[in-house]
Amino acid sequence: MGRLKIATIGGGSSYTPELFEGFIKRKDELDIKEIWLVDIEEGKEKLEIVGAMAKRMIKAANLDWEVHLTMDRRAALKDADFVTTQFRVGLLDARIKDETIPLKYGMMGQETNGAGGMFKALRTIPVIKSIIDDMKELCPNAWLVNFTNPSGMVTEAAIKHFGWTRTIGLCNVPIVHQNIANAFEGLEPFSEELYFKFAGLNHFHWHRVWNKQGQEITDKIIDQQYGKDIAPEDMPEGVKNIPQMPFDYDLVKHEGLLPCMYHRYYYLTQTMLDLELEEYKENNTRAQLVKATEDRLFELYKDPNLDYKPKELSERGGTFYSDAACEVIASIVNDKRKVMVVSTQNKGAIADLPYDSIAEVSSYITSHGAEPIVWGSFKSAQRGMLQIMKAMEECTIEAAITGNYETLKQAFTINPLIESGEKADMVMNELLVAHKKHLPQFADKIAELESKGVTYNG
Amino acid sequence: MGRLKIATIGGGSSYTPELFEGFIKRKDELDIKEIWLVDIEEGKEKLEIVGAMAKRMIKAANLDWEVHLTMDRRAALKDADFVTTQFRVGLLDARIKDETIPLKYGMMGQETNGAGGMFKALRTIPVIKSIIDDMKELCPNAWLVNFTNPSGMVTEAAIKHFGWTRTIGLCNVPIVHQNIANAFEGLEPFSEELYFKFAGLNHFHWHRVWNKQGQEITDKIIDQQYGKDIAPEDMPEGVKNIPQMPFDYDLVKHEGLLPCMYHRYYYLTQTMLDLELEEYKENNTRAQLVKATEDRLFELYKDPNLDYKPKELSERGGTFYSDAACEVIASIVNDKRKVMVVSTQNKGAIADLPYDSIAEVSSYITSHGAEPIVWGSFKSAQRGMLQIMKAMEECTIEAAITGNYETLKQAFTINPLIESGEKADMVMNELLVAHKKHLPQFADKIAELESKGVTYNG
Amino acid sequence: MGRLKIATIGGGSSYTPELFEGFIKRKDELDIKEIWLVDIEEGKEKLEIVGAMAKRMIKAANLDWEVHLTMDRRAALKDADFVTTQFRVGLLDARIKDETIPLKYGMMGQETNGAGGMFKALRTIPVIKSIIDDMKELCPNAWLVNFTNPSGMVTEAAIKHFGWTRTIGLCNVPIVHQNIANAFEGLEPFSEELYFKFAGLNHFHWHRVWNKQGQEITDKIIDQQYGKDIAPEDMPEGVKNIPQMPFDYDLVKHEGLLPCMYHRYYYLTQTMLDLELEEYKENNTRAQLVKATEDRLFELYKDPNLDYKPKELSERGGTFYSDAACEVIASIVNDKRKVMVVSTQNKGAIADLPYDSIAEVSSYITSHGAEPIVWGSFKSAQRGMLQIMKAMEECTIEAAITGNYETLKQAFTINPLIESGEKADMVMNELLVAHKKHLPQFADKIAELESKGVTYNG
Amino acid sequence: MGRLKIATIGGGSSYTPELFEGFIKRKDELDIKEIWLVDIEEGKEKLEIVGAMAKRMIKAANLDWEVHLTMDRRAALKDADFVTTQFRVGLLDARIKDETIPLKYGMMGQETNGAGGMFKALRTIPVIKSIIDDMKELCPNAWLVNFTNPSGMVTEAAIKHFGWTRTIGLCNVPIVHQNIANAFEGLEPFSEELYFKFAGLNHFHWHRVWNKQGQEITDKIIDQQYGKDIAPEDMPEGVKNIPQMPFDYDLVKHEGLLPCMYHRYYYLTQTMLDLELEEYKENNTRAQLVKATEDRLFELYKDPNLDYKPKELSERGGTFYSDAACEVIASIVNDKRKVMVVSTQNKGAIADLPYDSIAEVSSYITSHGAEPIVWGSFKSAQRGMLQIMKAMEECTIEAAITGNYETLKQAFTINPLIESGEKADMVMNELLVAHKKHLPQFADKIAELESKGVTYNG
Repeated sequence: MGRLKIATIGGGSSYTPELFEGFIKRKDELDIKEIWLVDIEEGKEKLEIVGAMAKRMIKAANLDWEVHLTMDRRAALKDADFVTTQFRVGLLDARIKDETIPLKYGMMGQETNGAGGMFKALRTIPVIKSIIDDMKELCPNAWLVNFTNPSGMVTEAAIKHFGWTRTIGLCNVPIVHQNIANAFEGLEPFSEELYFKFAGLNHFHWHRVWNKQGQEITDKIIDQQYGKDIAPEDMPEGVKNIPQMPFDYDLVKHEGLLPCMYHRYYYLTQTMLDLELEEYKENNTRAQLVKATEDRLFELYKDPNLDYKPKELSERGGTFYSDAACEVIASIVNDKRKVMVVSTQNKGAIADLPYDSIAEVSSYITSHGAEPIVWGSFKSAQRGMLQIMKAMEECTIEAAITGNYETLKQAFTINPLIESGEKADMVMNELLVAHKKHLPQFADKIAELESKGVTYNG
Repeated sequence: MGRLKIATIGGGSSYTPELFEGFIKRKDELDIKEIWLVDIEEGKEKLEIVGAMAKRMIKAANLDWEVHLTMDRRAALKDADFVTTQFRVGLLDARIKDETIPLKYGMMGQETNGAGGMFKALRTIPVIKSIIDDMKELCPNAWLVNFTNPSGMVTEAAIKHFGWTRTIGLCNVPIVHQNIANAFEGLEPFSEELYFKFAGLNHFHWHRVWNKQGQEITDKIIDQQYGKDIAPEDMPEGVKNIPQMPFDYDLVKHEGLLPCMYHRYYYLTQTMLDLELEEYKENNTRAQLVKATEDRLFELYKDPNLDYKPKELSERGGTFYSDAACEVIASIVNDKRKVMVVSTQNKGAIADLPYDSIAEVSSYITSHGAEPIVWGSFKSAQRGMLQIMKAMEECTIEAAITGNYETLKQAFTINPLIESGEKADMVMNELLVAHKKHLPQFADKIAELESKGVTYNG
Repeated sequence: MGRLKIATIGGGSSYTPELFEGFIKRKDELDIKEIWLVDIEEGKEKLEIVGAMAKRMIKAANLDWEVHLTMDRRAALKDADFVTTQFRVGLLDARIKDETIPLKYGMMGQETNGAGGMFKALRTIPVIKSIIDDMKELCPNAWLVNFTNPSGMVTEAAIKHFGWTRTIGLCNVPIVHQNIANAFEGLEPFSEELYFKFAGLNHFHWHRVWNKQGQEITDKIIDQQYGKDIAPEDMPEGVKNIPQMPFDYDLVKHEGLLPCMYHRYYYLTQTMLDLELEEYKENNTRAQLVKATEDRLFELYKDPNLDYKPKELSERGGTFYSDAACEVIASIVNDKRKVMVVSTQNKGAIADLPYDSIAEVSSYITSHGAEPIVWGSFKSAQRGMLQIMKAMEECTIEAAITGNYETLKQAFTINPLIESGEKADMVMNELLVAHKKHLPQFADKIAELESKGVTYNG
Repeated sequence: MGRLKIATIGGGSSYTPELFEGFIKRKDELDIKEIWLVDIEEGKEKLEIVGAMAKRMIKAANLDWEVHLTMDRRAALKDADFVTTQFRVGLLDARIKDETIPLKYGMMGQETNGAGGMFKALRTIPVIKSIIDDMKELCPNAWLVNFTNPSGMVTEAAIKHFGWTRTIGLCNVPIVHQNIANAFEGLEPFSEELYFKFAGLNHFHWHRVWNKQGQEITDKIIDQQYGKDIAPEDMPEGVKNIPQMPFDYDLVKHEGLLPCMYHRYYYLTQTMLDLELEEYKENNTRAQLVKATEDRLFELYKDPNLDYKPKELSERGGTFYSDAACEVIASIVNDKRKVMVVSTQNKGAIADLPYDSIAEVSSYITSHGAEPIVWGSFKSAQRGMLQIMKAMEECTIEAAITGNYETLKQAFTINPLIESGEKADMVMNELLVAHKKHLPQFADKIAELESKGVTYNG
């Protein structure tokens, strides 16, 4: 590679300053020529605000990197070395629908693996396909670094269905978990002293930890984080999206593995649902909060004197996502062989999942991509959940590609966060109608539902 | 084998007349010397009533078979050729608890794979172990023909954990399904004209059907049974335990496989739950109905002139169970190589399940046991559910053997019919306390729960 | 199906009378309208001789079945219900080359799984492809009943590579083994009293046997057949192709499985090779003997009074092949659900082989095809051999399809009957040149070899 | 860990100076307190010579490490942190038998995976068992770093059969391969610039190589090493044990993987055998050469002025073995997370091998052991060979543990380097008798063979 061209789809995102901060932090590792921020018409205003700020950041860092703002995706992709994806089809309004429509029927919305996350996959996967179609033509050697959620499903679609093997899927959750454990052990964030081993699916993994002396300290970290005597307010803060509901300490202890923070939805389904219903009643769902935060952020970004990432962005929730993307890029460019937790081809890393599935596992990031480290088999209790979640992902991806309503219903039926039955059907139907604009693959079915009187009225 | 000795554990069951009818029907295939009906003290009265009737049936059939009634299990097992198990630890009162305690908390009871069925496994598996311990000593070559529910878990415990490979697990559900299809095709019950292929787990399987001409008619049978225009009252009657809630025709059609009637609980979870909550409010749960039926049956059995199975028994719900047991015995004795659906070692029959799991699959019943027919892999939607159910079974069996409370909680957590969280914990705790007498392996935990004020009060 | 149309490719074979005898024997099960015997120009004379005889057999049986002799394969395939394949590309002269060229270099020829068998696969698989191409157009619902050797590889090519799932591969070896055991137990040939279970690959399988009482008698049959005190001349006769070299009794006993008679080549490689080299020196290879027998047979067939299968045909060696084909056809037509040993999709029947491989396993033959019975896993010693043989088959099939010389060399390299190295290369090269006419896919490579001076001179 | 105690079994080996050089080179990483060199009575003289020299090396390096020479293995093991094994049961005389007896019968000896290597496993595995038995008692937390050959089988026995999971098996071959490629790319030995990925079994693996830019250069390295125009004398030198016979370039190119240098025995079996037979005729087998070299080395070691590893040791052949052991120890002690190629539990790293097998794969060496990197599946040609070799290893290990003669014969039968049959039996029998002293587990069988006249006469 010569000097790098990086294209960021969804460049108008409020996260863009974090991404730029990440690049700037790695200026010695990354010889960047140009960064193209791409967005769509509806996002033009935000793109211009955040793009101007990004340019100020580059200038403040005294770098000669070009920053291009464009609505022309093909121009951005042309000869790119890296394509990062941080777009949100339908913007935050879509997320609000994802979360509130299920809650209206008394059902968990959950913007990643629940009904909401499935609909996000339905909207996103066709767009990923069209990006990859362009990449095949315009930048056939580029890496796709995806952090659009649901990151695991999007990565599986990209690699297994659309054939872009040079895809790496990212998530900030493993980073947050590592930093929590680091803090408990008196270590700096991003310290590499502890050895972490993660395996599972995006937003659905477990991990183990060893110290420098070779002792497994998983148990100790469980005690530190989830011990019975720890008051909820003293529990370590996870990602902003998830209420800090305490896990069942005895259960986690018995599992002998550190759960992903999203496991609360599965280990405490009814309790979490009650909490979300409460928030819903108060018009206080996560998406609604995020929207308010975003508005505030863009107000800040407009300040022509702001040339660094404001601390308020950390409260947004997606912290470390963009940094992870920068680190993956730096690892590939420099063959750093750093161990990161990424969504990549399973190939036996987790014995309980299909060979060609995408798994989220600790991997060695080399200049030729991710080399996953073997995890082995899970015990029954984790294995069963993992397998049904993978099956749910497979059905969802298939539905996203084919637009088949019954395949989507299968995904709904087997999703452990959804109680199948009449209400689930109503949720599914209303979500389809509400997201009509972004679900062209379901156009016929949506028309049929509308003709039967299904409507979305907020 | 010379003349056969058969020992029936739980001989005082109301099903015993069906079992005897089954034996008598096969008198030309089965050269029986003695049948031992075994029961426990609490079942003595019933044993004597139904035992006397069984003797009348033998006499009416003009057979010289000896019928022994005993509370001495070891005497019954001594040199037995076949041991059949139809006992219910805790009798029907235990089933009532299994069903009503969860419903009290707004959760599905479901006496086979739900919380109720799990507790039935916890009570039954230790007893199966003690029977097998005796068999190792007293009748090391005997076959164990199990139709105590949950039949799949009990069989897995018997074979995989207690090492009794000469175990065959039975269920009447596949027979009922076959007879429904036979009826649609204008065939007699038990006709072997159609070719049925079943695979999955006990009370959780799918099947396909072919006609004599080699055409798959699965789709046609789906239409016949679950077609949209069929009024619920015209739908074929399944087993008595399950409300005749119509399946989602489009979904079943899309799956392309005939579901087990118990799949209603998984495909229509919330709808079925609402129905059960309704019944519960009216003191009308299945267990309560069954208890009333049983009382009526035993009144009938007392009639010294009754020497045949009364038609009222068919309404009891377990129809064909005992007949299946007789047929398995006849197939083994005569090497009939009949295809039956039984719980047996998977060994690759279903590619999605562990090699050493017990699966319920169409098998060829020979004089040396069951030879399963290859099913292959399921598609995503079935595969995921099957795998989590097997994992749930594994955790439940392990909890039944070890008495580990957290393992049991894992089983609860991953069971798709149970929403994990505070209420699930309350259900689990109350069930433990309620079944105290029959859960010695959990004695310490139950004492702890009681000391914390957990009680069962009906 | 109405009245049946059967097309037999390679109709001029000396086996045709056995095939007709098989059909006639099953006249009550098979409502045949027409049988088309197809052959190529070079086989026309033989076709006419054996075709005339076949017509005499039909007449003698007083049947109205039409017998058509043709060189027009497409006419024969048009609307056929069953297509049977018994052709030999290159006729017996090709087999002579297969056997003698390796022996010339001191290497096993072995007309099925050795170098010879691999070249037979290279010649046959392209022809099978062209037949299937025609079938897709002319008889899309027909069954392909293959007994052209190497039957396993041809069946794998047909199903896995050419997509004709309605293929069943046959072999007479399992039948011979069953009849040997039957004879030892005092039973008639084709008795179904014993229960046989076979698994492996064509000409490379093992089996177990149980008696009517459910006892495994594998050990006893091993003693009867391979006991140390049995003189070679008293050993049961297997197929004519294989010298009756005694197995190592202790080894077979330790394996605990009955080997296929072809296992002599693998268990006694050097001893068998010495024997074959001896025969080769005396111009007495199996192919040479067969050719002489065939000439005699056709002389017999010319007799206008001969209207039944002459006993001399049994000495030809392939006995039961055709009968097996007739039985498969009768089982499909009548949904007889008979257990036969056939080459069919593995799908987990043998846990040690790929899911989509073709395996030779005991299967239930229904009107919709073969339903294999689960075998499970082999122990190490069998597993390793089985796996390398499957890999060898895969490379050979790939080479047959692609004409890739290096892929063929891979197959040679891993074949346990071939010692890789310079001589193996010479064998491979000379076989390629010798079979030039029938290996169009290797045309370029053969031209290159010829230009380097490789020749075949008998 | 505090200051380290290291016990080296087979301390009297000629390699000991390399081991000490390795430790000394890593003096900053390894805080050693004591090194115990253990040997048996027969090795006492050598132990004293090489032990004295080791002490001189420590002194010259100005270190305070204690060096103990002992025949008391238990004293050495007591509280050890690391146990390294470099012993040779039966010394070089045994290896001479391993190599020459097969050659006497015209069969490959091959001291690792052939008949010779199998007998080395038979002699070594019982000793490893007794070491582990002692370790369980005396140093339950120690790591076993094995480089006694056959390293893969010994490691599998240690981990899978004797339960010592803290075992890491080593080999120098991957290091040699890496250094060859490094040299071609103009890099220093042990450079970590290239990315190597190895998978397979000990002395039977393949590897791929990528450069710093992320391009796979496997093909290029194949060309460099095995290109057609390269004269044998210009081919890179591998290990001393293996003649530098050129590989078949086209075949290797087609495989697309770099073979292990031992693959010559499998890809060129007959050619290699001819070469070895030649050497045998001239009393010039590898073992004979090595014995002469060793004698010379010990003469050198006697020099009281020699206090560094003499360059002559590099000619011995096992170069890098000891260094690899030191590096593994340093990686564990310091949690270096270095990627090394070791024998460790497969757990899915290679999809084609059993989960609980030992594989030789690129692994991340941490303070808690080896974390293998996922390789995935091999293609047919490699898969088949790998699988039969693993099966051969399993049978050999089982025979080593049980002393079962027929299990050993199974291993012989399936080993691709051995042609089964009468001569193979003679080889096996003579090897058993020749190694009588070191094969107590086969005592009865050997007595029987001797009574039948089997003798070893050199």
